[in-house]
Amino acid sequence: MNDESSIGIVEPQFFTFANSPDEMELDCGRKLGPITIGYETYGTLNQDKSNAVLVLHALSMDAHAAGFHDIDDRKPGWWDELIGPGKGFDTDEHFIICSNVLGGCQGSTGPSSINPETGKQFGLQFPIITIGDMVRAQRRLVEHLGIKKLRSVAGGSMGGMQALEWMTRYADLTESAIVIATTPRLGAQAIAFDAVGRHAIQADQEFHNGDYHEVEKHPAQGLSIARMLAHITYLSDESMRSKFGRALRETDHYSYDFGSEFSVETYLDYQGAQFVNRFDANSYLYITKAINYFDLAASHGGLDNAMARTKCKVMVLSYSSDWLYPPYQSQEIVHALTRQKRDVTYCNIKSDYGHDAFLLEVDAMRELIGGFLRNVAEPYHFGVDDPPSAPPISHHDSEAALAPEPTSPRSIYEGVRVDYDMIVKLVESGSRVLDIGCGTGELLAQLLESKQVDGVGIELRQGNIISCVRQGISVVQGDIDDGLGYLPDQSFDYALLSMTLQVVKKPEYVLAEMIRVARRCIVTFPNFGYWKVRAKVLMQGRAPITRSLPYAWFNSPNRHVLSIKDFRQYCATRNIQIEREIPLSSRGEGSRAATWPNLFADEAIFVISAGNRT
Amino acid sequence: MNDESSIGIVEPQFFTFANSPDEMELDCGRKLGPITIGYETYGTLNQDKSNAVLVLHALSMDAHAAGFHDIDDRKPGWWDELIGPGKGFDTDEHFIICSNVLGGCQGSTGPSSINPETGKQFGLQFPIITIGDMVRAQRRLVEHLGIKKLRSVAGGSMGGMQALEWMTRYADLTESAIVIATTPRLGAQAIAFDAVGRHAIQADQEFHNGDYHEVEKHPAQGLSIARMLAHITYLSDESMRSKFGRALRETDHYSYDFGSEFSVETYLDYQGAQFVNRFDANSYLYITKAINYFDLAASHGGLDNAMARTKCKVMVLSYSSDWLYPPYQSQEIVHALTRQKRDVTYCNIKSDYGHDAFLLEVDAMRELIGGFLRNVAEPYHFGVDDPPSAPPISHHDSEAALAPEPTSPRSIYEGVRVDYDMIVKLVESGSRVLDIGCGTGELLAQLLESKQVDGVGIELRQGNIISCVRQGISVVQGDIDDGLGYLPDQSFDYALLSMTLQVVKKPEYVLAEMIRVARRCIVTFPNFGYWKVRAKVLMQGRAPITRSLPYAWFNSPNRHVLSIKDFRQYCATRNIQIEREIPLSSRGEGSRAATWPNLFADEAIFVISAGNRT
Repeated sequence: MNDESSIGIVEPQFFTFANSPDEMELDCGRKLGPITIGYETYGTLNQDKSNAVLVLHALSMDAHAAGFHDIDDRKPGWWDELIGPGKGFDTDEHFIICSNVLGGCQGSTGPSSINPETGKQFGLQFPIITIGDMVRAQRRLVEHLGIKKLRSVAGGSMGGMQALEWMTRYADLTESAIVIATTPRLGAQAIAFDAVGRHAIQADQEFHNGDYHEVEKHPAQGLSIARMLAHITYLSDESMRSKFGRALRETDHYSYDFGSEFSVETYLDYQGAQFVNRFDANSYLYITKAINYFDLAASHGGLDNAMARTKCKVMVLSYSSDWLYPPYQSQEIVHALTRQKRDVTYCNIKSDYGHDAFLLEVDAMRELIGGFLRNVAEPYHFGVDDPPSAPPISHHDSEAALAPEPTSPRSIYEGVRVDYDMIVKLVESGSRVLDIGCGTGELLAQLLESKQVDGVGIELRQGNIISCVRQGISVVQGDIDDGLGYLPDQSFDYALLSMTLQVVKKPEYVLAEMIRVARRCIVTFPNFGYWKVRAKVLMQGRAPITRSLPYAWFNSPNRHVLSIKDFRQYCATRNIQIEREIPLSSRGEGSRAATWPNLFADEAIFVISAGNRT
Repeated sequence: MNDESSIGIVEPQFFTFANSPDEMELDCGRKLGPITIGYETYGTLNQDKSNAVLVLHALSMDAHAAGFHDIDDRKPGWWDELIGPGKGFDTDEHFIICSNVLGGCQGSTGPSSINPETGKQFGLQFPIITIGDMVRAQRRLVEHLGIKKLRSVAGGSMGGMQALEWMTRYADLTESAIVIATTPRLGAQAIAFDAVGRHAIQADQEFHNGDYHEVEKHPAQGLSIARMLAHITYLSDESMRSKFGRALRETDHYSYDFGSEFSVETYLDYQGAQFVNRFDANSYLYITKAINYFDLAASHGGLDNAMARTKCKVMVLSYSSDWLYPPYQSQEIVHALTRQKRDVTYCNIKSDYGHDAFLLEVDAMRELIGGFLRNVAEPYHFGVDDPPSAPPISHHDSEAALAPEPTSPRSIYEGVRVDYDMIVKLVESGSRVLDIGCGTGELLAQLLESKQVDGVGIELRQGNIISCVRQGISVVQGDIDDGLGYLPDQSFDYALLSMTLQVVKKPEYVLAEMIRVARRCIVTFPNFGYWKVRAKVLMQGRAPITRSLPYAWFNSPNRHVLSIKDFRQYCATRNIQIEREIPLSSRGEGSRAATWPNLFADEAIFVISAGNRT
């Protein structure tokens, strides 16, 4: 151990419950007890026991999430870069608990534990356990620690499944959930990979139907093959290409035999060999089976029903190159939460690391998790508090993706957004607002502060999403050109689209979607009918460059030029009702803009809604 | 057998060569002989033996590519949908040969053959073979059949590797190559999957270091696991989702044990069990090793050097959802061929089937392969021949993707392209031309007919690519917004961009790329300075709709509006030389357009080139 920001030396702890005759009932119908759960804690539980965060581990990990077991330890816990003083899971603020799952082999009861009925290891006599059973046991541990309500539950991969289970089964017991690199249910491909891994273990001649402990051997080859296979699915084509390529191990020519010679082969051999030293083959069978069985949708009669049970703030993180639990599966969770009007933030972190990114993309995660948890602990009051201080950003390659975008096509008046004040005036207090293309959250922050809205943003850029999260603004990463198909009709009071209509691919589609999901839409755009535009086109015969259309033809992000008159006519032919039309002028032509808007306004605000369906 | 378009009953044939002392020398340095090659042929070899097409099979296939072995056969050969009378490989036109690879277990010499030195099966005594060795043996077969030059070599997956080997090693022996769903070299991920599969076979207790034949057993479990794993990589997440999802086999509740219960599990079990009945485990080891060793770049000192050796027309096909040999790997082949000024056509066929698409996307392949081979056999003479008749299109879902796009933003004068005639006049005879956004190949066809250019198109849409292929026009699927980074400086005489500048994302980048790769660029675009445009903007204050700008603001594919004056100024500030500027008028304003182009031309043609580098 040599890391100054480390939590330091940590102590494995154990909790035993479900002693006879109070065995725990499992999803499979069988009972199990006594149950021991191995766990660790980091930081200090506060007086009112309100600062506990339960961290949930993935398939092959354990309770040792941070710090070192002794001073000679060279490797810290598996999430050490994120757990510690000043880190994403800031142990100066939060009390972190991590427990080994039921069915595991690192301190918790599992198939390698002694079966009290036989006095021998359970082996395959161990009951099939589920993610639900794991969480049930964790709940007992949390109760044992005297915690009435968790500040958060957070985990990646199988840990994310546990977080989902927590927030739906024990909705009253957690204030928030951080759901990372996971899925509401595995697809056929992921099930298939797990099944092949189990076949490899079961085919090993040393497996002895799970009773290998009796012959003092174990199915090392089978487990190693299962691990190698799984390991491929944790990486990505990109990361394997840059890490290994076609390099040969210690030579530059083929050996023309069947030994492992490519670097990727010897790497996998090593990973397999390491794994069999620390993991029990039966635990691997049981835990992969629990992962395969997990189906949040089926167990609640649909994903929306599941999400309707949640009561907490949720943050969902996925990774662009994760093909084991692909981002679209995280988006299913996010969309169901949004449909159920739950408070959800989502970021698809740009990464080449594949599924393993949840262990490696620590810079972006520190910002997102740290910002999210700070706002759960103490919601930011706009205009009252100082803005939350940003945690330190390390200077890695990914830094660019952490900063907000300095310029965007939306800033037209040298950064001053005259339309924002007007939009804030137009929105009713306490209404539910969707801000499409919310940027760094400036408009939503104003609306939260002065109108106490229930607001959510949609935004494309990772840096802007981090800005929103720091302020406690809920934001879902997405591209408006993909539509809002996941949102039900009329589920918002307002949909806002400010200075964005001219850059979207399909304005017709975007406007139709906005009018479908919101009772009122507020749309602002630069007016192509402005007199200076007309004059330049007439006199110079060139594409106009003005203050509100400041780009040259070849570098403009604007795909569409439209005027106030164009928009009016568009609404008329589409049965869209114009409730208000507010011409804006940035150049002291205010009164003329009011009288002749298409000529003297360089920007326009429209409040529109669905016309009468006759 | 019940298919009327089937080739019917076919006969396995055998050819033996490399008898002692003329054993064949292998890449590994060892000698092998005698060698028997199992093969089949379909169709009739013509008088001058010029119509032979060699079809090359993938890892787990064999010489039986089409037809039936007897009338009770229920399953035809593996590419039966593409080989037969009137099919893509039209047996009325071509004589098709397919042979089982060296190292295989379906009629050709492999590890299960008898070692003449021991009188027992080779097992692991069989020498390591390479794709090069397989092709070397095929060459002997082709010579044996009296064929001096093949019309084509064609194969998918490992068959594509053989096609690549043919066209680079035996460049004089084939007129064309069809390279499908393959890669110039496996990446680390694909090598890793193969390595895990081999581990599973070698770990099987019945493997006996490859001498399992002596104990009359075989490593069925290990081979089955290898096959299951490989099978997952042949499908795609999408296809597995739609085929299996999370369906359970014959039940609607979990069994809470370790039996195979998901449909995808029982499917893979079945695939594994079927495979071990027909395939030899040692052959699996040898052939996957040959695949892993294949590296066209390394064996020629770079991919460009390899492609410089080819002399034939090439068609490369990849599949959008293939993640085993992803499309970008096919594109590396295409780009190297283009750099080497070789005649190449490329289509990334849209498919959800994953790698297996090369066996399943038969409609698009029939069009592409059929069109390509017809033009190899008898090049289409523009203006002399009748256009080639299209093969019948079956009415499948994919039909839409087979037809050319009926409208495109390039057709502005109700389909009549007045700029084409002018461009054809401007281009010098026999020059090398790149047509960016070539559509259905109309302009290239004119240029081929009247100027005998060496032309290649770049086009995005699959339907348009099929149109080009039918006419024998070489076309590479690609998006100009991704740039031309793979092309060297000044490698074309002309780059053409007609009525496309206004729809590209980054016109600056596109123009810079064109000027980099071609000595002269011809660019045409609609003129935003046209008087009608100006008048509409002035009088109506609305985005103009005219004949040359026929779209409304909300549905326009045009991202950029520019005028002749804009373009002139752009060239001036970028040190781009305007060699010619030709205003076009479609409305009888020709003379005025010549005098005041920006006012009276509704379209413009510019011939530009790099200015002096001072």
